Amino acid sequence: MPRIEAFGARLAAAVEARQSQVVVGIDPDPDRLWPAAVSRAGEARALMQVPAGDARFETAVAVLGHALALIDAAAPACVAAKPQHAFFEQLGFAGWLALEHVCAHARAAGLLVIADAKRGDVPSTAAAYSRALTGPEPGLAADAITANPLMGRDALAPLVDGARARGAGVFLLVRTSNPGADDVLDLVLANGRPLWEQLARMTAELGGATAPGALADVGAVTGATRPEHLARMRELMPSTPFLLPGIGAQGGDVAALAPAFAPGRAAGLVTASRSIANAHEAAGGDPARAARAEAERLRETAWNLA
Amino acid sequence: MPRIEAFGARLAAAVEARQSQVVVGIDPDPDRLWPAAVSRAGEARALMQVPAGDARFETAVAVLGHALALIDAAAPACVAAKPQHAFFEQLGFAGWLALEHVCAHARAAGLLVIADAKRGDVPSTAAAYSRALTGPEPGLAADAITANPLMGRDALAPLVDGARARGAGVFLLVRTSNPGADDVLDLVLANGRPLWEQLARMTAELGGATAPGALADVGAVTGATRPEHLARMRELMPSTPFLLPGIGAQGGDVAALAPAFAPGRAAGLVTASRSIANAHEAAGGDPARAARAEAERLRETAWNLA
Repeated sequence: MPRIEAFGARLAAAVEARQSQVVVGIDPDPDRLWPAAVSRAGEARALMQVPAGDARFETAVAVLGHALALIDAAAPACVAAKPQHAFFEQLGFAGWLALEHVCAHARAAGLLVIADAKRGDVPSTAAAYSRALTGPEPGLAADAITANPLMGRDALAPLVDGARARGAGVFLLVRTSNPGADDVLDLVLANGRPLWEQLARMTAELGGATAPGALADVGAVTGATRPEHLARMRELMPSTPFLLPGIGAQGGDVAALAPAFAPGRAAGLVTASRSIANAHEAAGGDPARAARAEAERLRETAWNLA
Repeated sequence: MPRIEAFGARLAAAVEARQSQVVVGIDPDPDRLWPAAVSRAGEARALMQVPAGDARFETAVAVLGHALALIDAAAPACVAAKPQHAFFEQLGFAGWLALEHVCAHARAAGLLVIADAKRGDVPSTAAAYSRALTGPEPGLAADAITANPLMGRDALAPLVDGARARGAGVFLLVRTSNPGADDVLDLVLANGRPLWEQLARMTAELGGATAPGALADVGAVTGATRPEHLARMRELMPSTPFLLPGIGAQGGDVAALAPAFAPGRAAGLVTASRSIANAHEAAGGDPARAARAEAERLRETAWNLA
């Protein structure tokens, strides 16, 4: 059996090969699709193997057409695509079918796939989620997933072990970028430190020991709206890849992220969704061209920080 | 527009009408399906509107056939069905299609549907999850969902508001029944109390004020493996419905749950999954008859505690 390369090494190699740390988020709003939703509907329908005119699939077909075009536009400036499950699940089973083809298309475009599902459940259920997300077909075979650590280590173990067995990774929520993250993640523990620091310690521990300079296969979702935390996070998680949302539509500032990249460029992935997909709304012109330009702008900014 | 009855009132009425607090969990393992997976495959395929012999759907068809029989067997002793999303998502989009029909069949059998998805994400994403779970078709139109409170109030608001607008409820994870719940939920805060007490307070607050004797529409998942906590939970959440997993396969003991029912029988829902679906493995005989007997045993035990 061929040795499976660990996610940390795969990620570092992908960032180097593509000269990019940018992750394009795929969270399509059915009311704001590109014209490609129409022009690529035939292709989407063929991929999904559904007959024209079956009303159960029409919105999902349009969403897939849009997503194919978005991936094609952004991919040259990106290292990964991050489909957000909720935006597909809201379309029912047809949306999940579209999601499967979004993952396949991103992979074919040379991108890693990060399934942004933020799952977390008791061990037997977590094992089923692991099969759904990082398992082979009918699983999504994602290269990485996001997960919620609230239920503790035994709930995370099947996700981490299942991913690891396939060279995939798990990004745990440590400090998210939404204002309400204050309510729980910033609660101060008896040791005088915020809860998120404990989650950071658990994340580092689950990632295990890594060779000097190597990245772990358990990452952290670290909200970029609080850049003052990044140095402390890096201290607690020296070899952990950070997934940094909050750029663009959520108000983050990419220049504040430099501390995340201390162990190397692949240690800080910069996520952007609406700022890429909706770039044409501000910049005008063709959505694909505007998306590509915005992804490239982000790529260059991030690359020059490290 | 007709006034929409709140979930707390709907739940209390359903428990009274069905004389049951039992929630049958639907988390089918494709390797342990009932013979109904075969005998009801035709019916399942017709519901799913998929042609015979399309390999993409065959496991999901079998799982749906099994689930239809499980619901039919257990329903007379139950007030709700709780499909566990992971066990359907592991089958890909065909699994999600089966899940849609599990929800519809449970509803037709007179049960409330609790979508056990444990979602939680930033507000715009949470709104999409709300549409997926409690929204009308292509949403699942569930009567209640489970959600993860780690990301705070603003992440929960779209789930609670979306559910409330449709008379549905949200059960937040407060103290789960897995051993690893110690790792995070039991962390002691600066105020000397465990984190789960803070989540309990947030749950009570999100449920809002209720009339004396009425139940809130924000509930709590409260692991029955720690029955010593239930009195404290009830103190912090006087009008919150509790969803009590951990009976049966997870090792809980139904007799220890009495404090949960203090505000009335509907305030404590008793969940069981494998102990019902796999009752025939211990008891022998027909799976449906064994499941019905076990659900009825649980129903009677819980009912006599309040």
